[in-house]
Amino acid sequence: MKKSDVIKTLLNHRYVYTENTSGSAFAPANIALCKYWGKRDIELNLPVTSSLSVSLGEQGAHTTVSLINASEDKIRINEEDITLDTQIAKRLIEFLDLFRSNTEMHFAIDTKINIPMSAGLASSACSFAALIQALDQLFSWQLDRINLSILARLGSGSACRSLWDGFVKWHAGKEEDGMDSFAELLPYEWPHLCVGLLVISDQPKPISSREAMQKTVNTSCYYKSWPEKVKTDLAVLQEAIASRDFDLFGSVAESNALAMHASMLTANPPILYWLPETVAMMHQIWKKRAEGLPIYFTQDAGPNLKLLFLKTDIEQVKKTFPEIKIIMPFEKH
Amino acid sequence: MKKSDVIKTLLNHRYVYTENTSGSAFAPANIALCKYWGKRDIELNLPVTSSLSVSLGEQGAHTTVSLINASEDKIRINEEDITLDTQIAKRLIEFLDLFRSNTEMHFAIDTKINIPMSAGLASSACSFAALIQALDQLFSWQLDRINLSILARLGSGSACRSLWDGFVKWHAGKEEDGMDSFAELLPYEWPHLCVGLLVISDQPKPISSREAMQKTVNTSCYYKSWPEKVKTDLAVLQEAIASRDFDLFGSVAESNALAMHASMLTANPPILYWLPETVAMMHQIWKKRAEGLPIYFTQDAGPNLKLLFLKTDIEQVKKTFPEIKIIMPFEKH
Repeated sequence: MKKSDVIKTLLNHRYVYTENTSGSAFAPANIALCKYWGKRDIELNLPVTSSLSVSLGEQGAHTTVSLINASEDKIRINEEDITLDTQIAKRLIEFLDLFRSNTEMHFAIDTKINIPMSAGLASSACSFAALIQALDQLFSWQLDRINLSILARLGSGSACRSLWDGFVKWHAGKEEDGMDSFAELLPYEWPHLCVGLLVISDQPKPISSREAMQKTVNTSCYYKSWPEKVKTDLAVLQEAIASRDFDLFGSVAESNALAMHASMLTANPPILYWLPETVAMMHQIWKKRAEGLPIYFTQDAGPNLKLLFLKTDIEQVKKTFPEIKIIMPFEKH
Repeated sequence: MKKSDVIKTLLNHRYVYTENTSGSAFAPANIALCKYWGKRDIELNLPVTSSLSVSLGEQGAHTTVSLINASEDKIRINEEDITLDTQIAKRLIEFLDLFRSNTEMHFAIDTKINIPMSAGLASSACSFAALIQALDQLFSWQLDRINLSILARLGSGSACRSLWDGFVKWHAGKEEDGMDSFAELLPYEWPHLCVGLLVISDQPKPISSREAMQKTVNTSCYYKSWPEKVKTDLAVLQEAIASRDFDLFGSVAESNALAMHASMLTANPPILYWLPETVAMMHQIWKKRAEGLPIYFTQDAGPNLKLLFLKTDIEQVKKTFPEIKIIMPFEKH
C-alpha cells in the first residue's frame, strides 16, 4: 500500500480547484506518555501499538502554505530559508508531492516553531500537523480532524497526535491501508498538570529515532513484550487521567519511557541515547521523589528528560531544577 | 525443600568424626559472561537459567576453617575480626549451621580476599567456594567438585562457579532438590583473554543484587524473555569460546549484561545501578570500538564495568583507561 493510495481514498472527490492561494494553521507539539515505538508499516507510518500523548498548548508550529509561481518549493522555518537538500526539507517536499495536482505546482511553506528546538521536543510532529491543516484550508478539502490526522501521519507518525489540544490517543488500527489508524481527543482535562523541559544536550542525535525504532523492532530480545506492556500502560494511564491520580499517572508514564529505552538497550548493536547527565538527573528525580516530591519523568529518543508534576509543586521543582522550562498544557482551558 | 535436606542427601554417610581440626582452600572470583539473574527457588538458590563465567585465576579468597572451643563462631576477613551481627557474618554463620553436628560445635573462619573489594567483584562467590572446600578438608568428606558446587550454591548462588579455574558453566537443572543444579568446568582455555576492572564507585549499593533480582523477576514486563535470551547467548558464547572468536564473544557478553540491566530498568519501581560515570564509560568503550579497538564490557549488579579484550590490545586499553586493573584469567596455564 502506498501513500498515494491513501490520498486517493481520502481526497477522491475533494481534490479540486481552489480559489485560495494560501492556508494557515497552528498545531501544538505533543509529548507521548505512552510511546509510539515500532511500525507495522514503514511506508504509511502505521504503528505496532496505540499511543497516548498530551499536547503542549501554545507551544508548537504555526504554518502558512501558499501556491507559488516557481520551479521548486520554498521552505522557511523560523525566518530562515532552508536548503532543499536538507533532511527536513526533503521530508516536507516528499509530503507535498502527495498533494500536487501536477508537477508544475509548487508550494512555499513558512513555519514558525516556538518550542525550544534544543529541548528534544519533536518539532516534526507539530510541523506536519500544522502543514496538513494549512493544506486543508488552501485546497478547501474541509476534511474533519480525524481524517487530517491520517494524512498528517503519512508525514510523521506522531504528527497525527498534534491535531488537538489536550490528551490525545492514536489508535494503532489493524487495516492495511491505515484508515483505522487515526488520533482522537480524549475527553479529559487536567488544569494543574505541568510538563517541565530539562535540556541536557542540544547536540544532534547519534541515531535518528526512526532508525532506532526499526533496529529495536528487528533485533531486541524484549521487543515482543512491548505491545503487551503498552496495552496495560494505556489502560492504566487513561484510568489515572480520568481519576486524576497523579502518582499512578506519573509512574506509568515513567515506566513506559524506561521500557522503551530498555528495549533499545537490547537492540543489536545496543542503542543508548542517555548521557551521563541523563542518569544524574534520573537519580536526582528519584531521590526527590523518595523525599516526598511527586515528580516523574518521561523521555523520548534523545538524552533529555521531560518532567511531570503538578502546579502545587512548581516552586519546589524550580528550586531543584533551576534551569527547567515549565509548560502547563491546559493553562488556557 | 530445605537446605538441610540437601545436606542430608549429599553428606549422608560422610558426616562423621574427623581428626582434622582445620581445613584450607583457595577459590577464585568469577565474572559471569552470561548472567545468573533470577531464582526458581529462593531457599536453595536454584536459578531460572544456566549461566557461564570465567574465573579470575589467582584473584579470589583463601580460607581456613577450624573447629574451636568457644561459645560462638569467629570470623576474620583480611586480618579484621568481623562482628557477628553484620550481613556477611550472618550469611556465613547460617551456612556453617548446615554443617554443625551439634549446637556446641563452633568454627573460626579466616579469609584473605585478594580481589579489589571495591571493584564490584562479588567476594561472596569466592568466599563460599573456598569455605566449602575448606570444610570438605576439615571433615574429610572427600566430595567431588561437582557436589561441592552444589553445597557452595546453598551459600551463594554464583559461588558454585568458583570451584574451578577457567570457563565454568552452571547448569540450571530442573529438580526440586537442585541435585542437577551444579557447575562444571568447560574444556576450553583462552590464554590471551584479559579482564579489565574499572572502578567507578566503591559506595554501598542502593539495593542488594538478591533483592534486585527478585524484584525484577516479580515485576519486569521483559523478564519472561530473559530465559530465551540466555539460551541463545549461552549457545553462541560457547561457540565463540570454542572458536576463539573474540568479537562474537565480547558482543554476546555485553549484550547479555545490557539485557540484565534492561530487565531491572523495567522492574517496578525501576532499578538502575548505573551512575553517570557508567554511561560515560560505556560511550567511551563504544567510541573506541567504532574506531577499531576490539573492547567490550560486562556489568554486574553495580555501577562498575568489567572490560573484555585481548592481550594484543593491552597497551591501547591502558592508554584509554589508565586506572584499569588487568587480570589474565588463563595466565598461569
